[in-house]
Amino acid sequence: MPELRKDPIVDRWVIISSERGKRPTDFLNIVEEKKDIFSPFTAGNEDMTPPEIFAIRPEHGAPNTPGWTLRVVPNKYPALRVEGQLNRRGDGIYDMMNGVGAHEVIIETPDKDRTLGDLDIPSIENVFRVFKERILDLKKDIRLKYAMIFKNHGFAAGATVKHSHSQLIATPIIPKLVLEELHGANAYYNLKERCIFCDIIRQELKDNTRVVYDEEFFIALEPFAARSPFETWILPKEHFSHYEMIDEIRIRHLSITFKTVMQKLNIALQTPPYNFVLHKAPMQESPMRHYHWHLEIMPKLTRFAGFEWGTGFYINPTSPEDAAQFLKEIGV
Amino acid sequence: MPELRKDPIVDRWVIISSERGKRPTDFLNIVEEKKDIFSPFTAGNEDMTPPEIFAIRPEHGAPNTPGWTLRVVPNKYPALRVEGQLNRRGDGIYDMMNGVGAHEVIIETPDKDRTLGDLDIPSIENVFRVFKERILDLKKDIRLKYAMIFKNHGFAAGATVKHSHSQLIATPIIPKLVLEELHGANAYYNLKERCIFCDIIRQELKDNTRVVYDEEFFIALEPFAARSPFETWILPKEHFSHYEMIDEIRIRHLSITFKTVMQKLNIALQTPPYNFVLHKAPMQESPMRHYHWHLEIMPKLTRFAGFEWGTGFYINPTSPEDAAQFLKEIGV
Repeated sequence: MPELRKDPIVDRWVIISSERGKRPTDFLNIVEEKKDIFSPFTAGNEDMTPPEIFAIRPEHGAPNTPGWTLRVVPNKYPALRVEGQLNRRGDGIYDMMNGVGAHEVIIETPDKDRTLGDLDIPSIENVFRVFKERILDLKKDIRLKYAMIFKNHGFAAGATVKHSHSQLIATPIIPKLVLEELHGANAYYNLKERCIFCDIIRQELKDNTRVVYDEEFFIALEPFAARSPFETWILPKEHFSHYEMIDEIRIRHLSITFKTVMQKLNIALQTPPYNFVLHKAPMQESPMRHYHWHLEIMPKLTRFAGFEWGTGFYINPTSPEDAAQFLKEIGV
Repeated sequence: MPELRKDPIVDRWVIISSERGKRPTDFLNIVEEKKDIFSPFTAGNEDMTPPEIFAIRPEHGAPNTPGWTLRVVPNKYPALRVEGQLNRRGDGIYDMMNGVGAHEVIIETPDKDRTLGDLDIPSIENVFRVFKERILDLKKDIRLKYAMIFKNHGFAAGATVKHSHSQLIATPIIPKLVLEELHGANAYYNLKERCIFCDIIRQELKDNTRVVYDEEFFIALEPFAARSPFETWILPKEHFSHYEMIDEIRIRHLSITFKTVMQKLNIALQTPPYNFVLHKAPMQESPMRHYHWHLEIMPKLTRFAGFEWGTGFYINPTSPEDAAQFLKEIGV
């Protein structure tokens, strides 16, 4: 019997239709990557991007020259621009404002053929550290309320450049799904005086049917109402609303947890296209008792489902319990 | 300068980033359809589907034999099943129920090579009439609150069978995006005592910058905060909350409007993959003053954008004004 499950945070039902019986190998035909294509992000091609905002250069070389291990540049085709006034205005029933914001690209490695999950732990730490540093820097611009950090890996997941990178879009608004999480988590806190994410972690550790990886500071799990097969969340086990408060020891543990999860996903699904989105409290807000940052990783296995886009209703052919069991058994 | 626009109904901001300058022809490389593949829905293959629920047979032939012009069958791999109890239950903080519901396929033509937009007006009328009939039939099952009617046309839009068909999923829950529309429209009604969709139609007719097609009973327009290029909505100009209340004259006008819009989209975008979703009031509810049914058509031109899925935040490279201008100028 298929099952309808409600996301505990937002008002979203999903169908877990595991009778359709998707095993990880059923998804493999979706993977189709072009190899050895030209990369504007490779070391030596620094003049193909706008001048860098930040870089890690172990040899202390000049900006916009090779010798870096990580580089942050403005997006060459930015969706938003830093210049200008917000200029909020209406037109009849409609509301709009200027597209003020930032759009940055974090080039995670100079090597065009490596993926974030392939990198060694210190290099992954650099990526998670630079996420923190960029948020702290952009936070100074009080027009900007939110910094979305996300990754499109692989053509099927929306990447236009294969070379491993993540993106940051800072906006004067809070994205809808984060707003819904904030509302849902706040309603729960008002009722229970507990963080819903902390309660989820407690229940998941007790049930132990959806946990993929568990260590001192972080837990990786398949969410109860997973929207798609092998959707995996990484959450800090302690309560933190703002990602940018992360310290060095926790950056290290996050990097280990992330690499472990990616290795498991890459073995299970043969290096799938995927997206991740870092969900965290709005950067101009004080610490929140009801919200809890987390990283949502979504392998792109099923094709774009139009009706899901138009209804907010998802059909997931793999139960999160089956996915968790499968991933847990993969030794890395 | 890119522009941030807020959807007037739900709390969703989109970036209209038309500086990226997408013309319709920029999207054409996405189109890749396999031709002449086998169709389980073609006349003669009736035994490849579960027994029909309904069919239009001008020659009055036997069920599940050729001679039909439209056929409704249960989905062979249903996401939900009609049998069983809802059995709502909890597990700690989680809520779930059995996957009770219906999943039907409307085979719109016996000809595997024709698309819905290609059909003659009487055949399109049959499709829109059968949507109404199926809702009215399923409404008798009071466990079912909503009937999602949608279409995935083309591989990139999620279709698994090329043969032209739409689908109906009836559920014991209201899908999230419809719930948000109901809430948003209700809040507006409480403030203004007017339907927000009626106000949108009034303003669009006055502004006349986003209207694609306008006739006696229906209007087709590009929504102000369109999420993707050439997103097009068809709305009845009179206030109706429930699609299933549509009468014969309006079915005819809806069919003409739909065909006109599809011809324009097919010329502009060279027969793009697309989805449509029929948004309407929950079927067990009485007529609502604040809600207004409409058909959302979304050509699938940009690739799956993972971060949009994870944030509810959209970047649209084509302004709805440009898209409307382009579509309006295409004579059909």
